[in-house]
Amino acid sequence: MRIFEEMESEVRGYVRSFPTVFDVAKGSELFDENGTRYIDFFAGAGVLNYGHNHPMVTKALIEHLERDGIVHGLDKATIAKRAFLQKFRDTILAPRNLQYKVQFTGPTGTNAVETAMKLARMVKQRSNIIAFTNGYHGLTMGALAATGNYFYKDESYGSRSNTAFMPYDGFLGEDVDTIDYLRKFLNDGSSGIDLPAAIIVETVQGEGGINVARIEWLKKLEQLCREFDILLIIDDIQVGNGRTGTFFSFERAGIHPDMVTLSKSIGGGLPMALLLMRPELDQWQPGEHTGTFRGNNLAFVAATEALSFWDNDDLATAVVHKGKFIEQELQKIADEFPQFNPKVRGLGMIWGLEMTPGVASETSAEAFERGLIIETSGADDQVLKFLPSLLIEEELLTEGLGIIRDSLQALAQKRDDMMTGR
Amino acid sequence: MRIFEEMESEVRGYVRSFPTVFDVAKGSELFDENGTRYIDFFAGAGVLNYGHNHPMVTKALIEHLERDGIVHGLDKATIAKRAFLQKFRDTILAPRNLQYKVQFTGPTGTNAVETAMKLARMVKQRSNIIAFTNGYHGLTMGALAATGNYFYKDESYGSRSNTAFMPYDGFLGEDVDTIDYLRKFLNDGSSGIDLPAAIIVETVQGEGGINVARIEWLKKLEQLCREFDILLIIDDIQVGNGRTGTFFSFERAGIHPDMVTLSKSIGGGLPMALLLMRPELDQWQPGEHTGTFRGNNLAFVAATEALSFWDNDDLATAVVHKGKFIEQELQKIADEFPQFNPKVRGLGMIWGLEMTPGVASETSAEAFERGLIIETSGADDQVLKFLPSLLIEEELLTEGLGIIRDSLQALAQKRDDMMTGR
Amino acid sequence: MRIFEEMESEVRGYVRSFPTVFDVAKGSELFDENGTRYIDFFAGAGVLNYGHNHPMVTKALIEHLERDGIVHGLDKATIAKRAFLQKFRDTILAPRNLQYKVQFTGPTGTNAVETAMKLARMVKQRSNIIAFTNGYHGLTMGALAATGNYFYKDESYGSRSNTAFMPYDGFLGEDVDTIDYLRKFLNDGSSGIDLPAAIIVETVQGEGGINVARIEWLKKLEQLCREFDILLIIDDIQVGNGRTGTFFSFERAGIHPDMVTLSKSIGGGLPMALLLMRPELDQWQPGEHTGTFRGNNLAFVAATEALSFWDNDDLATAVVHKGKFIEQELQKIADEFPQFNPKVRGLGMIWGLEMTPGVASETSAEAFERGLIIETSGADDQVLKFLPSLLIEEELLTEGLGIIRDSLQALAQKRDDMMTGR
Amino acid sequence: MRIFEEMESEVRGYVRSFPTVFDVAKGSELFDENGTRYIDFFAGAGVLNYGHNHPMVTKALIEHLERDGIVHGLDKATIAKRAFLQKFRDTILAPRNLQYKVQFTGPTGTNAVETAMKLARMVKQRSNIIAFTNGYHGLTMGALAATGNYFYKDESYGSRSNTAFMPYDGFLGEDVDTIDYLRKFLNDGSSGIDLPAAIIVETVQGEGGINVARIEWLKKLEQLCREFDILLIIDDIQVGNGRTGTFFSFERAGIHPDMVTLSKSIGGGLPMALLLMRPELDQWQPGEHTGTFRGNNLAFVAATEALSFWDNDDLATAVVHKGKFIEQELQKIADEFPQFNPKVRGLGMIWGLEMTPGVASETSAEAFERGLIIETSGADDQVLKFLPSLLIEEELLTEGLGIIRDSLQALAQKRDDMMTGR
Repeated sequence: MRIFEEMESEVRGYVRSFPTVFDVAKGSELFDENGTRYIDFFAGAGVLNYGHNHPMVTKALIEHLERDGIVHGLDKATIAKRAFLQKFRDTILAPRNLQYKVQFTGPTGTNAVETAMKLARMVKQRSNIIAFTNGYHGLTMGALAATGNYFYKDESYGSRSNTAFMPYDGFLGEDVDTIDYLRKFLNDGSSGIDLPAAIIVETVQGEGGINVARIEWLKKLEQLCREFDILLIIDDIQVGNGRTGTFFSFERAGIHPDMVTLSKSIGGGLPMALLLMRPELDQWQPGEHTGTFRGNNLAFVAATEALSFWDNDDLATAVVHKGKFIEQELQKIADEFPQFNPKVRGLGMIWGLEMTPGVASETSAEAFERGLIIETSGADDQVLKFLPSLLIEEELLTEGLGIIRDSLQALAQKRDDMMTGR
Repeated sequence: MRIFEEMESEVRGYVRSFPTVFDVAKGSELFDENGTRYIDFFAGAGVLNYGHNHPMVTKALIEHLERDGIVHGLDKATIAKRAFLQKFRDTILAPRNLQYKVQFTGPTGTNAVETAMKLARMVKQRSNIIAFTNGYHGLTMGALAATGNYFYKDESYGSRSNTAFMPYDGFLGEDVDTIDYLRKFLNDGSSGIDLPAAIIVETVQGEGGINVARIEWLKKLEQLCREFDILLIIDDIQVGNGRTGTFFSFERAGIHPDMVTLSKSIGGGLPMALLLMRPELDQWQPGEHTGTFRGNNLAFVAATEALSFWDNDDLATAVVHKGKFIEQELQKIADEFPQFNPKVRGLGMIWGLEMTPGVASETSAEAFERGLIIETSGADDQVLKFLPSLLIEEELLTEGLGIIRDSLQALAQKRDDMMTGR
Repeated sequence: MRIFEEMESEVRGYVRSFPTVFDVAKGSELFDENGTRYIDFFAGAGVLNYGHNHPMVTKALIEHLERDGIVHGLDKATIAKRAFLQKFRDTILAPRNLQYKVQFTGPTGTNAVETAMKLARMVKQRSNIIAFTNGYHGLTMGALAATGNYFYKDESYGSRSNTAFMPYDGFLGEDVDTIDYLRKFLNDGSSGIDLPAAIIVETVQGEGGINVARIEWLKKLEQLCREFDILLIIDDIQVGNGRTGTFFSFERAGIHPDMVTLSKSIGGGLPMALLLMRPELDQWQPGEHTGTFRGNNLAFVAATEALSFWDNDDLATAVVHKGKFIEQELQKIADEFPQFNPKVRGLGMIWGLEMTPGVASETSAEAFERGLIIETSGADDQVLKFLPSLLIEEELLTEGLGIIRDSLQALAQKRDDMMTGR
Repeated sequence: MRIFEEMESEVRGYVRSFPTVFDVAKGSELFDENGTRYIDFFAGAGVLNYGHNHPMVTKALIEHLERDGIVHGLDKATIAKRAFLQKFRDTILAPRNLQYKVQFTGPTGTNAVETAMKLARMVKQRSNIIAFTNGYHGLTMGALAATGNYFYKDESYGSRSNTAFMPYDGFLGEDVDTIDYLRKFLNDGSSGIDLPAAIIVETVQGEGGINVARIEWLKKLEQLCREFDILLIIDDIQVGNGRTGTFFSFERAGIHPDMVTLSKSIGGGLPMALLLMRPELDQWQPGEHTGTFRGNNLAFVAATEALSFWDNDDLATAVVHKGKFIEQELQKIADEFPQFNPKVRGLGMIWGLEMTPGVASETSAEAFERGLIIETSGADDQVLKFLPSLLIEEELLTEGLGIIRDSLQALAQKRDDMMTGR
């Protein structure tokens, strides 16, 4: 491990939480170079909805490489890209009656977000964009301006311009309708909040602490966008790709965003990012937003394979089923450890267990020692974040949740010992 | 091809210049789905310095996939990442006596640039950054502010802040020393150009029209940075990785940048981006700049293989040799077609043939019909840009240059015909 | 009047509402060049709290001019300036136990606001500043960023940076405590609202529609500033100088702002503006914020005279008394014209009568024809704004309020006529 | 003096350079409270082109006050304002065939500049504005962004946006045509300098160190503005009002600016500021840029009197005459003190004597002790700035220049003494 400490920037993060050298992985299991097994409740921060190295994906990649299929294609037409577009249209867009055009952006979520923000501004000729408290949209300067967490900011960046932050669903308490609040600002020409080009929102805030927007709230948000002629951008980078039980996270609310950003699992584990947009918004000049790796053909190959999980409803059904199981188990755990003031929230297969400050991080560390990889989220890392592969076997799920229980038990014991001076 | 027109955003570009569906590729040759062969003088805009699907790289990728090596690793430690770090240290940094720390950023060049700009600002606690005329550093908002070309900008973006543009070497004519000019601005506390955190520069401007900064200019720039306590960021995304005849493009000038951005060919054809920084600048908090795909392990595998080309001096020698050949041949071509007012410039294996407005684009189109892929650059696409793989066989090089000659001949003929009314 | 139309910019405003050429004025009466008398319920938008051409002020100005007292002094020491400083200290600051230092800024309110914002940012080294919905702080770029009304803005200005707007007292309805709301944003490090250098607020919003912040709200705001180490700037430009019944408008709440901006009536009718600041905040370098007319000695002379109204409590008592009278009369008027949906609000001698959209402007026009000058405010000019001189005679007050009643009566009649088709 | 130190902000400046309490003044002489006389070579930083308390102005002000003429008028029509407009049209605009419309802004130069910048941006719908090295346009945020001197800036202000600085005439040396330089940036769509709405420039830079733009340079600048459809804003706040020998400073170059800012002496010693604009640019909505003191009627009265100096050519002739005298005398002084490396430059009655760093400030201090008030300018206060009233008597001019000579002599002696150890 020494070379990482010597050579890699201090910015490195997960290597500190999970200090071992990983070697191979399959499905929901990773193995380090000593052969130690880890169950994966993290899923590459949402990249691995279909697990590590799914045989179908791996097979397709090897075949592509063996036949010298184009690997790097910029935005030239290739067979792999065509196959992806066809599969995406036939499997995802057409059955949902969605007629988005597709823009391949640089293969990072933040690039898709920047693209959406630029396009919205250009089309509407308004520079303002509204984002929400606890939203996370990326760390390049355009996206950073829409990301709430101060940890990522510095006075020297000069990032505070042309975005306004409004309270997300629940931010002011369960009883306050924050869309009404937002509406007051938009209705009042003297509120200081200028009419925005777009509102960007996650339907479930992952980094923000697993905050689930209510269906009613999302519907009212869409309605408000229509009334005021504001574009609605759904950032589905973390909670799209089936994470919430439908391919797009906004399907549950029956809304029709003007733009959708996709990344993470869309590439089947490989770097890829997309912007979907209503055709009339596609007002780009050729080459006006570009990027070298927007034609990562290995990702197209993997992505095309991964989309076949959406040929039928099996995966969606499984997510709902497993989601309920996670919820029940988490609720039981919560009941068992009232001393940590636990709160369970989530949807589909993204769940959070909020606890007393500090506990989530300690639990993650305890769990790692017991062979489970799980991360935290929220402004103060106060939420243990359950983000397993959608394909995880129920045994592994059960085993992993058992490790959580054991870890909390160990923590509780430690605290008791401290109290009693042992 | 119809699905690209129907589904892909109007922003698509190269697919318009090279309208066919590519299938496989090897070295410096691509084949479309009809089996038509194309010689590649474009090299994926600089990603394919080692050619398409180099057997060593392909083999390593297949092996990694076959053994279920971790593919997506965030910034966790993996065997593949460790191997890359070791190889990069031993092959690149150590022999050059460079002691940079390495930051893996999101796998796009623009992300590496944003990272450099953020870090420079944070470390120096100054928000201003100086960039140069005709510089290209990317299209996310932070990098865009340092990119000169107005084509990429829109009033609605609000991108004009905290960067100042200074004249690149030669911008004011051969006789004007633009560093003297810059010095005047920095020396005068009332010039309006506040002391910047950093100066960001390409040693050869690729997108800007193949403008080669003189060694003396680069030395003076470094000297000026030292005098005024300004960080020097070399953006080596396009012209690093051996393109100019040395691994880093700045080696020819003997300068020591404070930060270096690398991307494109560093990943051996797969998406990857790095920021190198002097250790004392590594003042990040863990996780302060992050990104999902900064641990693209397939790219680490490919990159490690690709770096073995630098185990000895063979590649460097070859680049110099082939570069001279290109220069000679281009000069001959220039002499043959004075009517296009041709100017040849370049270094190593990046060359530009500037011609009367419009001619470069037409030549590219003619060449494509004859089986050659070549792009243009410059603010008005006035420069034909020669960017072949560094490993290209001399026969293919000769064949490609022949196609250029034929294309120009055809253009000249067409123009003659128009003049004479035929 | 033609020369105004021919030569003066289209930006001219009040000359359109009150289309006559004024000549002389005394106390609360103006006379146009035809000798037509107008009662003044506008008081020069708050400059004329002591009425037009108060004999004491006029006498002092003439004496100063006759003895060739310095008129323009930049920030050199002069006898007139010294006299003002002494009078201000002895009459205003000392009796209130306030130990502010005084900065003479350029003689416009917006300049005092810009000065406060710059100083707050510099001292705290934070660029963010929080302002409130419907706040008005001026129209130069720094102050404009803190002014809510979109009417004053344009996309091309690029003014949207480093301010965040929060709901003023009552903005979300009477029942919502907007300080609690603001606190949530500040408490949550991921809210997107970065810790500001300062909060700038009017205790009564004049331009915003005569919105009176509750004492409790102001106290909680001060408390919040203390907790989070945020500077509290009271913009007392319009409602300071006794307008609300005490010299400073914030006295009623017993709070202690860190900075106070004063302008309008402080100059006794002549251009003058001040920034008051706690001594420890006075971290300016000599000359760091400057302006040619910051030493308008005629204004010092007038100001010194005007301050003598504060030698005893008579004026304060009178304001309270007359304020109650206005409130009663307005309430009667409101009761008389329910069809206009009237709402009365105000404090001291600043009162608003909000009515159905359009009615306030029409009333102002009707009143002008009847010899009364009165303006509107609010984002949609929906509020008739009562801003007479603090020294107005009760007879004139009664007469003016009678004109309002007559004007509303005439409007009501017109509407009835329209309804019945007459 | 103690009260100034106790109560006035540290930002106070001139009171430090000229530490006495001034009382009365007449023409070019000031007297402090002890009766000590001072000759004025500073003229209120350009406000007092017609001297202190000119009898005509004083008489008119007293008459206005005695008859209770409106003093504060916002932008209502008044007799005094009408008289000013007529006088300005008949005396200044008509004889010069200028058809500007007039906007009365808040009575500070910076406000006039902000108004010009806002209007230019709005009309052209471009946010960028080009300013020049060593330019000074004011210290509110909009104007500050166009002011070169870093002394006035702070990282926390966030002022660096939407302006670009270009080299003023002579900035790169006498031989370099900086308009050619600017043209290169505008011609090259990839230069990073976006097409601006306007270029703002002083024809003689006062604060910047008495830099006189050549006529040819100004003509070429106008030509460039026409070619590129850029508005030309002349900031004539300091060097208008006859300072350079013509009423507007740009008359010598025969150019026709699109907008002109006027302040300082336009008010005859009282606070006033104007924006002149070509009629087709007058696209304001009523009230879109406003300010409380834009109707300072005392200033209108004084201004109208002051404009009568332009009824004939006498003043212009006198300025040229006295200017030549100053130049000759300064040149003699320069020849006398080569040890201070003196350089003389100027125009009309604004002259600078640049000397070795430190000498100008010491000379100013020595002169003050000898009864002369004179200031410095330039980024490093390296220039002694001669700015007497245009009406100064030749005897006082000679006396003042004699004091300069004596002061330099004293300084030279001091230095000699130091060298020889006495």
